[in-house]
Amino acid sequence: MQQLEAYSILVEKAVNGLEFPVQPANLYDPLRYFMTLGGKRMRPILTLMGSELFGGKIEQAVPAAMAVEVFHNFTLIHDDIMDEAPLRRGKQTVHTKWDRNIAILSGDVLFVKAYQLLAEQDKSQLYDLLEQFNKTAIEVCEGQQMDMDFETRSDVQESEYIEMIRLKTSVLLGCALELGAIAANADLKDRKHLYDFGQYLGIAFQIQDDILDLYADPDKFGKQVGGDVISNKKTLLNLKAYALADETEKEILRQLSTEADLVLKVEQTRQIYTLIGAREACEKAMKEYYSKAMNALNAVNVSDTARKPLIALADLLMIRNS
Amino acid sequence: MQQLEAYSILVEKAVNGLEFPVQPANLYDPLRYFMTLGGKRMRPILTLMGSELFGGKIEQAVPAAMAVEVFHNFTLIHDDIMDEAPLRRGKQTVHTKWDRNIAILSGDVLFVKAYQLLAEQDKSQLYDLLEQFNKTAIEVCEGQQMDMDFETRSDVQESEYIEMIRLKTSVLLGCALELGAIAANADLKDRKHLYDFGQYLGIAFQIQDDILDLYADPDKFGKQVGGDVISNKKTLLNLKAYALADETEKEILRQLSTEADLVLKVEQTRQIYTLIGAREACEKAMKEYYSKAMNALNAVNVSDTARKPLIALADLLMIRNS
Repeated sequence: MQQLEAYSILVEKAVNGLEFPVQPANLYDPLRYFMTLGGKRMRPILTLMGSELFGGKIEQAVPAAMAVEVFHNFTLIHDDIMDEAPLRRGKQTVHTKWDRNIAILSGDVLFVKAYQLLAEQDKSQLYDLLEQFNKTAIEVCEGQQMDMDFETRSDVQESEYIEMIRLKTSVLLGCALELGAIAANADLKDRKHLYDFGQYLGIAFQIQDDILDLYADPDKFGKQVGGDVISNKKTLLNLKAYALADETEKEILRQLSTEADLVLKVEQTRQIYTLIGAREACEKAMKEYYSKAMNALNAVNVSDTARKPLIALADLLMIRNS
Repeated sequence: MQQLEAYSILVEKAVNGLEFPVQPANLYDPLRYFMTLGGKRMRPILTLMGSELFGGKIEQAVPAAMAVEVFHNFTLIHDDIMDEAPLRRGKQTVHTKWDRNIAILSGDVLFVKAYQLLAEQDKSQLYDLLEQFNKTAIEVCEGQQMDMDFETRSDVQESEYIEMIRLKTSVLLGCALELGAIAANADLKDRKHLYDFGQYLGIAFQIQDDILDLYADPDKFGKQVGGDVISNKKTLLNLKAYALADETEKEILRQLSTEADLVLKVEQTRQIYTLIGAREACEKAMKEYYSKAMNALNAVNVSDTARKPLIALADLLMIRNS
């Protein structure tokens, strides 16, 4: 996908062009470090694509695209503290390389930077950009809180899980696209369809992620296959499995959750999930959200040619590693 | 000061009117709790006074005033984590009553709330409000980082200390006033004078705070007199003392810093600070900043009658407990 690479190059250049003061070094060094750790930069690319969809010039949407990427990185810095994660993209997290207080405070300042970038857009768009961005930022926090709450709950419902992943990860994809649409002065109805495309695609992508975590080809998968099963993480696979299991199967699942032989645990859990139809049920749910995403994209009032790059991107996202 | 009470009542009503969703409870309960812990609400009152100074209706500035108060409370929640403070206004801090992760995340969401409130102001003012607010938010983080950095430094200069208190506390007073001025459509020149008034007043107030911490009447002072000396905190008094002391006096100061008898430590430090002229030097500096504040206020192009409430407020702030 040649066009994607062009967006990538533009985004990487803009990220490298972000400027932070020299002092206080303990506040800004972590930001220089973290912002250049890499990543797919999917969100800012979505903003640029959202703008182009409506005939907007790419350059017009770059500050909004950077606002989304900077916000995303702010959430990662704070999430890493909360999750006590030592590594991010194979490198030390901010709270590990510096300390927790520095990670809190440099995260806060990065959050303000996102708003400063947003304010670089045309003044006439500022209110709409801000409204969408604020709403999304709050939802992302709500999603993170739900995720933390789920860790200690044993009665999580499938609908709650979907709502959690919608808030924690999907709304930001919708927001990224919609900010691009606002930058191109798209009308409200089209903005909402595009937002829904991003949101549903995000949910489909996250469900795919849950499935791949257990069923991916180890040679192609970036992380340990079965990681979610090993840590007894609540995922859609897990919730579907318990929902579909009869009493005997539930007992087996419970026993497997405390199995000390991790290779055996992963292998047997995979088998029983497949057997009772959890994998199939997840794939069905994933396809439904993907289909909803495509319907939303088709509802946007633009030519089929204009839609093509986003369809290509969605296809690319949904077939990786599988 | 009857008028101040009227502002106070209005602000308290607006604070109580702030609405937070019910769920996730772990995200929003801490905010309901913390926002109603009380406090002087000085910052939102300044915003309302800043608006009235230019003939603006008070109601027009209420969302901006709330944005400032909400932002201030966000910084307190995060500062309390960083300072590991168990209490705030005599009540448990958020990270103590709930936990650290909840305090990080509910602080983040409160920060977004400040931006949502700002966006409730007239759209024509949004860019200016956002520009000033973003700049200030970043400076407050820089001030907090400098303050943390100072803890482990032994070479802090007086000018750095003043810059730290300017960033950590004073710019927000200037910002509070200027947001009110923007809400009343004041011109840029007047806005800047009013900002300077708040900023210089804040520095004068903070220096007074340093002096009172050691010299206040224990019966009238809200906290333990000598607390800064006991914890060897760097304050202007302390920096002035070392700057004015000869070698013998420096040696006495160093010995006092490790004195185990805390009553003796406070008493003797107070005596030597007075003797070498540190108290006098601080009072001089305080008066200079107060005077700068008044000059800035006088430069605002409004009637002397209009200025009176702010002068009364400044006088009230500068004579408490002394």
